[in-house]
Parts: sequence; C-alpha cells; structure tokens
Amino acid sequence: MPEPRIGVVGATGAVGTVTLECLRERGYTDVRAFASARSAGTRLGDLTVEEATPEALSAGDLDLCLFSVGTATSRQLVPHAVRGGAICVDKSSAYRLEPGIPLVVPEVNGERAREHDGILANPNCCTIPLTSALKPLHDAAGIARVRVATYQAASGAGARAMERLRATEPGDADLAMDWDYDGEEFDEEAKLRAETQKILELPALPISVSCMRVPVMIGHAESVWVETGEPLAPDRARELLGAALTLDDFPTPGRAAGRDDILVGRIRRDPTVQNGLAFLVVCDNLRKGAALNAIQIAELLLRARVTA
Amino acid sequence: MPEPRIGVVGATGAVGTVTLECLRERGYTDVRAFASARSAGTRLGDLTVEEATPEALSAGDLDLCLFSVGTATSRQLVPHAVRGGAICVDKSSAYRLEPGIPLVVPEVNGERAREHDGILANPNCCTIPLTSALKPLHDAAGIARVRVATYQAASGAGARAMERLRATEPGDADLAMDWDYDGEEFDEEAKLRAETQKILELPALPISVSCMRVPVMIGHAESVWVETGEPLAPDRARELLGAALTLDDFPTPGRAAGRDDILVGRIRRDPTVQNGLAFLVVCDNLRKGAALNAIQIAELLLRARVTA
Repeated sequence: MPEPRIGVVGATGAVGTVTLECLRERGYTDVRAFASARSAGTRLGDLTVEEATPEALSAGDLDLCLFSVGTATSRQLVPHAVRGGAICVDKSSAYRLEPGIPLVVPEVNGERAREHDGILANPNCCTIPLTSALKPLHDAAGIARVRVATYQAASGAGARAMERLRATEPGDADLAMDWDYDGEEFDEEAKLRAETQKILELPALPISVSCMRVPVMIGHAESVWVETGEPLAPDRARELLGAALTLDDFPTPGRAAGRDDILVGRIRRDPTVQNGLAFLVVCDNLRKGAALNAIQIAELLLRARVTA
Repeated sequence: MPEPRIGVVGATGAVGTVTLECLRERGYTDVRAFASARSAGTRLGDLTVEEATPEALSAGDLDLCLFSVGTATSRQLVPHAVRGGAICVDKSSAYRLEPGIPLVVPEVNGERAREHDGILANPNCCTIPLTSALKPLHDAAGIARVRVATYQAASGAGARAMERLRATEPGDADLAMDWDYDGEEFDEEAKLRAETQKILELPALPISVSCMRVPVMIGHAESVWVETGEPLAPDRARELLGAALTLDDFPTPGRAAGRDDILVGRIRRDPTVQNGLAFLVVCDNLRKGAALNAIQIAELLLRARVTA
C-alpha cells in the first residue's frame, strides 16, 4: 500500500497536536498540518502549518483528512476535502447525527465505517468510552437503561481552557458546566445520549446524563449505572469488560492520561434494582476520546483498501 | 439564658477552625479550643489551644462540646466530656449509626435531637445536603430509589489534604478515591447510604453511591437521581426544593463556598423511568456539611432549654 497522504486540519489545537503525535507514533510520515490563517506559517515540530483553505483541501493531493475544528468550520471545509477525493474523519459534532454518515468507535461498530460516502464522524469524547463499555454488556444481557455522571477534564474544552486551568491557583479551581444549555439539559448531555443510541443502534435506549467539568487537565471519567435486560453477575460483567477494555481497580484520569486504552473498574452491583450494575470508565479524552479514535477509524478503511 | 460554655475539640483542623469561625459569627463568646498535645499552647486568634485530656474535658465547666477529631479519638474522649456534664456533638463517624444516638440534620429530623443521652452525632458532609434535598421530595411523593455520584472537595479529607492540593500544579491534580475500600464499595459510600437511611427513617431505602474526590478546595457537589413512589413533576419538585434549600441554576462548589445554605439546581426529569427526577445539590462541606450543622444541632437543645 502506498503511504497515505494525510492532512490534519486544526493542527494547532488541543486535539490537533495530539493527532500529529499519534500519527507519528503509528509511523505515518506523509502528514501535513492545516489551521486558520492566523496560525499559517508557524512551525509544529518539523511541519510548517498551512492555511486550511477550500482550495488547499480540494487540490486532490490528500487521501485522508482528520478534522479537529469547530462545528461551523467543519461544515464549511469538510465538503471541499471530500470533493478533492480525501476521506474525511470529522471530530466536531457537525455530522455525527446525520443519517447515512457513519459515527464510529472501531471496537464497537467498526463495520459501519465502510458505509461512508466520504465523511465519517468521530463521536464525542465521553461517548467513546461509554459505548465501549456498554457494547459487551449489551451483547451479553441487553441494556435497558443507563445513567451517567461525567467528570470531564479541561482539555475537553480546548487549548485555551487548558491554559486557563494552568493559570489557576489550585485552591481556586471550581467545577464548571461550560456547555450550551436549553433550560433542561446541556448540549453535551444531549450529544452523549443521541450518539450512544446511534452507535449502539438502540434509538430508544433510555439514557440520563449529568455532565460536569472538573479541574483536571487530561482524562474524562464517567460514573455509570446500567440496568440490563437479563441478569448479569458483576463477576461476569468484569470478564466481559476486561476482554474489551483494561481493568483497573481505581481508574482515574491521571492513570489514563497518555494511554491508548480505556480503563474500567469498580464494577459492582447496583443494589437498588434487580439487574443493576455500576462501574467507572476513564480514558484519555485527547487520545482514545478524540485523536486516536479518529485515526483508528481511518485505519479501518486503509486496511479495507489493502484487502479489497 | 446564661451564655453556654463551649469547648471545640480538634480546633486546629479544617473543620475545627471553621467551627470557631461559625461560633464567632453567631455571637458565642465563651469558647475554648482543645486539640492534641502537639498543638497545645499555640494561638488561634485570641484563643490559646488547650490539650484535650480526659481530665480537662470532664472537669464540669463545659455545657457543650463540639468534636471534630478522628473516630478513634472521639470514642476515647467523648465519654469523658459527657461524664463532665457537657452535651457532645460529635462530627466523626464513631456514633452516627449507634442505636439510640440521634443523627441529626436540624431541617430534616431536628425533633430527634431531644432524644439524646449526652451524645449527638453529626452526619457525613455528603449526607447533610443529600438528606436535606430528599426529605421534601419524600414528604410529597415518597422516595423509592436513589443514585448519587459525588464530587467531593479536598477539604473533606482535612487540612493536610488542602495543603497537598495547594502545593499541586493545577495541571497535575487528579481525581481520587481516598477512602477505605472493602473490595465492593468505599466506607464513604456505605456511610452515605446508611446515614441517609437512618436520618430519613427509611432503613430499607435502596441507595447506590459512587464517590469521587475532585481537586477543588471547598464545596461538595452531588449529582442525584431519585425515583419517587408517586409522580412528581419537575416544576413541583423545584417548588419543594426551593422552599427547603436555595435554588441556583448552576450550583458549583465555588458558588457554595463560604455560604451557610445548601444550593440545589438542574432539577429535571430523569427520562429513563416513570417517576424519575435528577438534580444537583452543593454545599460548603466545612460549614453546613460539618461545623455549622453541628452548631445548629446544639442550638436546637439550647433553645429547648430556654423553652423548658
């Protein structure tokens, strides 16, 4: 297979820089960095940032584009890259819920990736670990009901939020709910619910989410309660989750940061209902929660090309 | 009523210093500070710390003792203060679940305070806001089932944990689960469940708790899911909770810190079940979560004496 020509769009952001890092770690060498006019010309390691213009992205010299820009910018630029012949994996929420566009976590619904028409969507950074944990439980016992409380790191809100946290006195940091609000729930909560339903292909799965931002730099944690349709002993759930994810007695963001895998632990009975389970799932929100998952989606297709 | 003679035992700790502050704010002037031999002789404002010996506490010159020391020290010292004739409000977990010892949140079960035999117990810092929120919902519609995810501040783990957080680079802070663990749940989770059942006088109430320490200095937050026995519209729940607590659209530890009241917000339907509600409750864990609640318990009895 010829080396794929990869464009990273939004390369200077929190997820973009980790995307470049993950690509390097995985041995990709034909990589170009794109960002806004403001950042064009700056250096990122041995790359010079190019301006992400419609012309540059549609020029036909890219096989794959990994987008980590805002939703509006994605809507504007992604179609140009598709026109130029690149497969686009978009990390914004622009296309995630659009019918016909695959929303993919490779380990959960990787087979959907091949149904793309140029665009694939990367889920929200909380959706990826959540669906990764729910899938094996659903396959074994069916999922009837899910409740999730999130502990989301500052880096999920971008590079500027990370700078703000770095500049805060530790004692002054507060919890926050820095998402758009419709009077009832945050858009972040609606995303986590709708994306989980789409990925698991359970459009009516009842899910209640409570999102919170915590003063931690990297790593999203989620405290999850699940009711299964059939009984599922905690020991069996531990086996199933251990086969899909990495078991950890006390998974925290600090333990997950910098790792590619998803940590799961504290798997126990939820004694308030018949078939209740509770557990904690944590991952590096910039890697498996964003950059790495997007690359893994692309790799499904690169592999598919080799096979074809 | 003569001015009550008050001893604060454990006066140099995180809760002890706030106890002295709350007593000052409320106009008490006959206050003595007790602590371990190591701290004896040091100054706390205009008080000189006395050693908390069995002899000093049983000398008969204290009407009220407020204890904020470890469980083992409480077990050792409280009986001496009782013997000396002081009413003791203990903030450790030593006596909380002991039959016959009132475990009191004045706004929730204040009437139980009069049943004391010298010792009253102050609940865990998460139990106080949780029961304060559950009580009006239970009175209106009955509570069938509760799930709680906590976001607990460093100060809940004492003065040393606060120093550690202050010395941490903001980017390096992690979530933590710094409680004793029996392989299934933390003692903190067991406390929150059992204390809530005792205070609400619902010994079989199903409760599932997931505790987490967050790198925030002061203020515990709890994300709560409740199923009521009878239907209860979110608007009605908002009225009930607003009458008992302080409504806040986005209650965070930073907003609750330094305040005496409990903030409650994000009251909404839990769409996963018939009679489900979700909300967020936050309070200053050192004030209403500990020091202030203990003083308010004592005030129930001081008032009772005046009335008698």
